Amino acid sequence: MKKLINDPSDVVTEALTGMALAEPGLRVDADQRVVYRAEPKDAGKVALVSGGGSGHEPMHGGFVGFGMLDAACAGEVFTSPVPDQILAATREVDRGAGVLHIVKNYTGDVMNFEMAAELAAADDVQVQTVVTADDVAVEDSTWTAGRRGVGVTVLVEKIAGAAAEAGLSLDEVAALARRVSEGGRSMGMALTSCTVPAAGKPTFDLPDDEMEIGIGIHGEPGRHRVPLAPASQIAPMLLDPILGDLDFTGGEVICFVNGMGATPELELYLMYGEIAKLLQEKGIRVARSLVGSYMTSLDMAGCSVTLLRADDELLRWWDSPVQTPGLRWGR
Amino acid sequence: MKKLINDPSDVVTEALTGMALAEPGLRVDADQRVVYRAEPKDAGKVALVSGGGSGHEPMHGGFVGFGMLDAACAGEVFTSPVPDQILAATREVDRGAGVLHIVKNYTGDVMNFEMAAELAAADDVQVQTVVTADDVAVEDSTWTAGRRGVGVTVLVEKIAGAAAEAGLSLDEVAALARRVSEGGRSMGMALTSCTVPAAGKPTFDLPDDEMEIGIGIHGEPGRHRVPLAPASQIAPMLLDPILGDLDFTGGEVICFVNGMGATPELELYLMYGEIAKLLQEKGIRVARSLVGSYMTSLDMAGCSVTLLRADDELLRWWDSPVQTPGLRWGR
Repeated sequence: MKKLINDPSDVVTEALTGMALAEPGLRVDADQRVVYRAEPKDAGKVALVSGGGSGHEPMHGGFVGFGMLDAACAGEVFTSPVPDQILAATREVDRGAGVLHIVKNYTGDVMNFEMAAELAAADDVQVQTVVTADDVAVEDSTWTAGRRGVGVTVLVEKIAGAAAEAGLSLDEVAALARRVSEGGRSMGMALTSCTVPAAGKPTFDLPDDEMEIGIGIHGEPGRHRVPLAPASQIAPMLLDPILGDLDFTGGEVICFVNGMGATPELELYLMYGEIAKLLQEKGIRVARSLVGSYMTSLDMAGCSVTLLRADDELLRWWDSPVQTPGLRWGR
Repeated sequence: MKKLINDPSDVVTEALTGMALAEPGLRVDADQRVVYRAEPKDAGKVALVSGGGSGHEPMHGGFVGFGMLDAACAGEVFTSPVPDQILAATREVDRGAGVLHIVKNYTGDVMNFEMAAELAAADDVQVQTVVTADDVAVEDSTWTAGRRGVGVTVLVEKIAGAAAEAGLSLDEVAALARRVSEGGRSMGMALTSCTVPAAGKPTFDLPDDEMEIGIGIHGEPGRHRVPLAPASQIAPMLLDPILGDLDFTGGEVICFVNGMGATPELELYLMYGEIAKLLQEKGIRVARSLVGSYMTSLDMAGCSVTLLRADDELLRWWDSPVQTPGLRWGR
């Protein structure tokens, strides 16, 4: 295993320690493993808490900041954060207007966020939850009942974060987050496995001449393995299942091409070009795009595509200023 | 070779095409392979042109935009752009106040930028050049006479870009760029090789239990190969040669921990923590930090460390707004 780490069991704590030193806009509780904004948002505004297993950076800790999350709870690599962490974060960030939990659909995450939400409610902190489940690759999977939550989570955090910053109520922010979650679909692929530090070896074996279509963000199985193919053939393998699941025809979309961690930007832009060409052929207009490694799987090579149905309201929130280590614009 | 590409000979053109579609702030001349700002800067301001071999993204095309570059010339992967490209870019971006060429010290780049500068001068475009040569790993190398230009290039582009945006003269911007270039030192390491698409196989072999200290950004040899070691031991292997080359004691620095393309952010923040700890022990204060994959080597795993002597003036330019696909803040 070739990694820039010390003891594998210290990876998350040490990375959070480094992040705290590098990012003055963040405050990190290294004991609880919660990343907060250094400067909490104004009283009376809805707060957003997300989190999940580590290894998907910049998601979620890198999305804490103005216009996006108020706190992110980091679990061990590919392991859910515990209810105590989530409860601490929820209590801490509540500014009197309630807290939205943004949770990817994995069994442990859903259970632990639910438990934390109940405990917070007992403390009179209002909590609403949106669960993302946008991965069209598989129904029920190794780690989930129902579909996995993947790329749309980044878009939910951005859009709901903007609405919360603007002062919308908890009901309104939650409804918006659910609308984004329901209007987004994703599909990923891997050229290589990832290696979890504590495991010390690749999560799965993938021959040199094969790729995995429909991969999960923990390296869990996708739809099928197929021979390596050029980008022009990979693009429809990702896009067709998305378009087959939700009708995007005639509308506008936000198109997000995401790298899985070890994919050069050169390849991501090239893939974006292939996806954009197909969308144009199908009469689907790209209103906004996002290309980069925003929701990763450690050192996996590969990419995912997320499409989100866009409208003027969503685009206004999308364009609103955001200032986080992982996503910044307009301020 | 596992890559998201089509024909290896089309990689750069196709990636630029995708970038043009994805980034509305850019205008890409796909024939000349030059990335421009969609909205040119105001007349009377100094323009900045950089460029080099592709495969180091987001450097340089991803640094075109407000507060940084006006144009970037993309060569083939790891191959210098040609004088015609550089000349076209230089002519196009000149707003009457002259053009600064920012060139990494590699033989081909230096020669081709020099030729373009001479041709531009014949057209009455004033050009000044700064050549970065901050890599302390090796004197003369496979691809250079003298030291290689690496991480400080990103810092030069940011700082000189801010000064140009503020309306400083060509002499002033060039002097500032040279001061940054001279006050910065870098050292990199690789856990794995990279694979150039046209070659189809790794540039070099690196056994599973070894790493290369002092690696070049094209996979060219560094100082030595050593057994794999924990991050806490890698940090001084990178930092000590930097501190041995230039005295940073007692001063402030900008500390840049850069990923080589396939390194997870988790590992980069962890490495940053190790570097920051050592700097603190030595009484070197980190005034600003930058952690991420900004100057990559395709799919190489590894990192580099750059220290830059900082002062109030440099920090003011550093903090100034920048709005490019690869680096954004404060606007």
